[in-house]
Amino acid sequence: MKALRLGTAVESTFQGGGGNGMVPSPRLLAPNGGEATHHREEGGNNGPSPGLTALRPTKPRSGKKLFAAPAGNKPPRRREPIWRGLVFFSVALNIGLLLSLCVNSTTTLPHHNERQEEHQACLINLDDAGRSGGKTMASQEEEPVPKLAAAMAPSTGKPAVTPESVINLDHGDPTMFEEFWQGTGSAAEIVIPGWQTMSYFSDVGNVCWFLEPGFGHEVRRLHRLVGNAAVDDGYHVLVGTGSTQLFMAALYALSPPGAPAPMSVVSTAPYYSSYPAVTDFLQSGLFRWAGDASSFKGDTYIELVCSPNNPDGAIREAVLSSESGVAVHDLAYYWPQYTAITRRADHDIMLFTVSKSTGHAGTRIGWALVKDREVAKRMTKFIELNTIGVSKDSQLRAAKVLRAVSDAYELPKGREAHRLFDYGRRKMVERWSMLREAAAASGIFSLPEETSGYCNFAKETAATNPAFAWLRCDREDVDDCASFLRGHKILTRSGSQFGADPRYVRVSMLDRDDAYDIFVKRLSSLR
Amino acid sequence: MKALRLGTAVESTFQGGGGNGMVPSPRLLAPNGGEATHHREEGGNNGPSPGLTALRPTKPRSGKKLFAAPAGNKPPRRREPIWRGLVFFSVALNIGLLLSLCVNSTTTLPHHNERQEEHQACLINLDDAGRSGGKTMASQEEEPVPKLAAAMAPSTGKPAVTPESVINLDHGDPTMFEEFWQGTGSAAEIVIPGWQTMSYFSDVGNVCWFLEPGFGHEVRRLHRLVGNAAVDDGYHVLVGTGSTQLFMAALYALSPPGAPAPMSVVSTAPYYSSYPAVTDFLQSGLFRWAGDASSFKGDTYIELVCSPNNPDGAIREAVLSSESGVAVHDLAYYWPQYTAITRRADHDIMLFTVSKSTGHAGTRIGWALVKDREVAKRMTKFIELNTIGVSKDSQLRAAKVLRAVSDAYELPKGREAHRLFDYGRRKMVERWSMLREAAAASGIFSLPEETSGYCNFAKETAATNPAFAWLRCDREDVDDCASFLRGHKILTRSGSQFGADPRYVRVSMLDRDDAYDIFVKRLSSLR
Repeated sequence: MKALRLGTAVESTFQGGGGNGMVPSPRLLAPNGGEATHHREEGGNNGPSPGLTALRPTKPRSGKKLFAAPAGNKPPRRREPIWRGLVFFSVALNIGLLLSLCVNSTTTLPHHNERQEEHQACLINLDDAGRSGGKTMASQEEEPVPKLAAAMAPSTGKPAVTPESVINLDHGDPTMFEEFWQGTGSAAEIVIPGWQTMSYFSDVGNVCWFLEPGFGHEVRRLHRLVGNAAVDDGYHVLVGTGSTQLFMAALYALSPPGAPAPMSVVSTAPYYSSYPAVTDFLQSGLFRWAGDASSFKGDTYIELVCSPNNPDGAIREAVLSSESGVAVHDLAYYWPQYTAITRRADHDIMLFTVSKSTGHAGTRIGWALVKDREVAKRMTKFIELNTIGVSKDSQLRAAKVLRAVSDAYELPKGREAHRLFDYGRRKMVERWSMLREAAAASGIFSLPEETSGYCNFAKETAATNPAFAWLRCDREDVDDCASFLRGHKILTRSGSQFGADPRYVRVSMLDRDDAYDIFVKRLSSLR
Repeated sequence: MKALRLGTAVESTFQGGGGNGMVPSPRLLAPNGGEATHHREEGGNNGPSPGLTALRPTKPRSGKKLFAAPAGNKPPRRREPIWRGLVFFSVALNIGLLLSLCVNSTTTLPHHNERQEEHQACLINLDDAGRSGGKTMASQEEEPVPKLAAAMAPSTGKPAVTPESVINLDHGDPTMFEEFWQGTGSAAEIVIPGWQTMSYFSDVGNVCWFLEPGFGHEVRRLHRLVGNAAVDDGYHVLVGTGSTQLFMAALYALSPPGAPAPMSVVSTAPYYSSYPAVTDFLQSGLFRWAGDASSFKGDTYIELVCSPNNPDGAIREAVLSSESGVAVHDLAYYWPQYTAITRRADHDIMLFTVSKSTGHAGTRIGWALVKDREVAKRMTKFIELNTIGVSKDSQLRAAKVLRAVSDAYELPKGREAHRLFDYGRRKMVERWSMLREAAAASGIFSLPEETSGYCNFAKETAATNPAFAWLRCDREDVDDCASFLRGHKILTRSGSQFGADPRYVRVSMLDRDDAYDIFVKRLSSLR
């Protein structure tokens, strides 16, 4: 019953730094405008409205039932039992009533208007309704200031979707994985007492002095389990505030400060839309975006190799080769739920993130495996200057999460139901199957060919099931697929932002079930 | 019994980006070198050595006894009861034995050698020995893999101090506050289930879309309680990965992208040593360090105003004034433990951080209060491009911590013992008194004059007790105070790094009691 209804988000470069990038347009949320700014920001003061409170208990927490099917099995898609239909109806009714009070229209099409971002006064928080077991943030309401506890219950601030909603699949927000983690009980729960991890330092003897040793350990353990990347033979583990910070750190580390010109940063198109934006937004004298690697002329460069590739899921290798060129491998999606693990990657710099491996985007934890000690030190230096290290709380949490993933595979008996990669692959296979059917039913879209390989981790042949769909609109009168889809209340990211044809769009495959279901249904109806 | 023994740390500019900055020199830790790199990084695999395990239980957790003295009272310094002496002796004996096995010498003076940072094979972790109540990380050892739980127990990786140790007061690591938070029980403890806060988004309706509403609420509440900064009348709350990221965000937001030359960034000397380093390390075309504000010529600039000032504790105002100049106010130390709260600051951009207000440096959470909406949006854009938001886990934790601070003042009965600012002021008054006595006993040092003002928060006249001591060595044959002190195993930061006379040094006043005590004793003996 949870989902999102956001406005379009256009990734801006530094020239348009005032633009909204990931920030959703507010028009969809609250086209009514008004003087609600402070009411919104101060919402915690007032506690939830009776309407919101009444809504909470109706949210299904189905974590306990998620793993009835044996792990690795691929059940037919049957996700509409009667109780779920009833709950859906009940929640939809409540939401409908509430929204009719709060916003003028839930079906207004996205219209970018930055001045109204804060005018959404009726956000619905369905995330703090409770869970299948253990202590929750919401359960702290027995403490002296119940209103505050309620206000602190984490949320995306996103209203629920309805069949009429605008569906935002522009970002790769990995909320699909919430369902899995709701089923793991306390295995991935973390408790941090007030006095813990107060120092800047985590491990003064390490190159990366702010790396929590427990996190570094779980990173190595998981890679050994999955077999997707080398971690022995001298690799350094570095932690970053998401892999984006590590990406910048790599650019910094690989660009000699005294060079006559900025280092050229390239990647084969279609390339991840953030690469040019993040490279150039500070107009650094050290490095500069130089576009598509396949048309680059020169010997000195940093080539970004994303594999499986964002946006199109392709398995990639570096296309350039030179003595003075270097590669950074972004392996965010090189995990068994998305692709076959065909080899143990052993590149000089490899980037990973919990956002895509486990779905914990809000934790903002990425890591790099780095061969060269001097490069590792210079990357560490970047993070020191940029943010004086990385949140220890998030590192501890990420360590606990990664540990739960490994434990489910390595510890005996009773853990099969909690195997992340089995769950993820099952979901992705199911979603890709739905998407291909929808595209076929519509007849106006095409998708990349399915490829497969023998997965050393799963010990079977596995198809690629990318985290994004690289969708092409084949209708001859459609030059701009993103606009066409937006006209049908589906928000995606245009191919033009990836250095590619705007007849392509990138579609996130990782949203929650309800949003994904509506998307697929709507897509299949387009002609 | 806890403290640190680190090497010197010289803040480097981007030209020397490969230098060590905050990274402690390893020589002090392990001058023996060897092939221990992987042993260190893999420590979690092996579990703690018997020696380390044996040491843990000896660490005193004195949280329960900290608040015997009534809040606001200033007890005479009497912190050596018999039990403490015995425990000290016991721990010192154990540490001595252990260190004699692990390192060649604990008294070697710092010698910068970057190649040996990872050669420290015998770090002593005293931080996970338990605590006064509630669930700890260490208590999770009952779970299936006890060794891992032990390895994940957070730590600074710092060995304990002894009377012979090198004392590192180069960084403002606020571990003094651990003692306070050990005494607050579960008030500041946080529990995060595995499925929570997985989305990138926190509050899609807000300018700062990654701000957890509960954190924003507690920030405003605390400022209203303390009266140190305006939060109403349209101020936006932005969250950052520490205030350093917000500092960079402010530079980005205030530098017009199309300007003919980079914006000049200035601050009156002595200025915080990170300002030039952070401004220039990426060689941005948007902004550039331009030195001491008091000698700046020009109309267009960003003036950094740190008040109370790092390093010298002075209360500051902007010294430049021009139509096209702007100021950023760094108010990290404008809290009642450090200075009298004489007015409610209401500048255009004000920066704060939990590192200095509550002592939670490892949490990496800062916030900005920003008047102008467009500036707030552009600062948010910086953080989006730099790290795609800020750790939600840390925001939730910071919210809980700030809430505990406010609750102790606002809720009735029984909370007087847990009032952070009362505790902090008592400690700082005590430490400054000790330091002034030591400087007087030595005869070769001078300190800034004590100033005072009426504190609107404490409702009494209060002296300034800065978080750093700006110490001058008056001996005529000493040109470089930092070198002189290093020769006596006291590590400080040279005045030259603050744009000032190297006869000055900055000394952190926020380390743990044992390290501070040794420092003061040693200082008083210098002639």
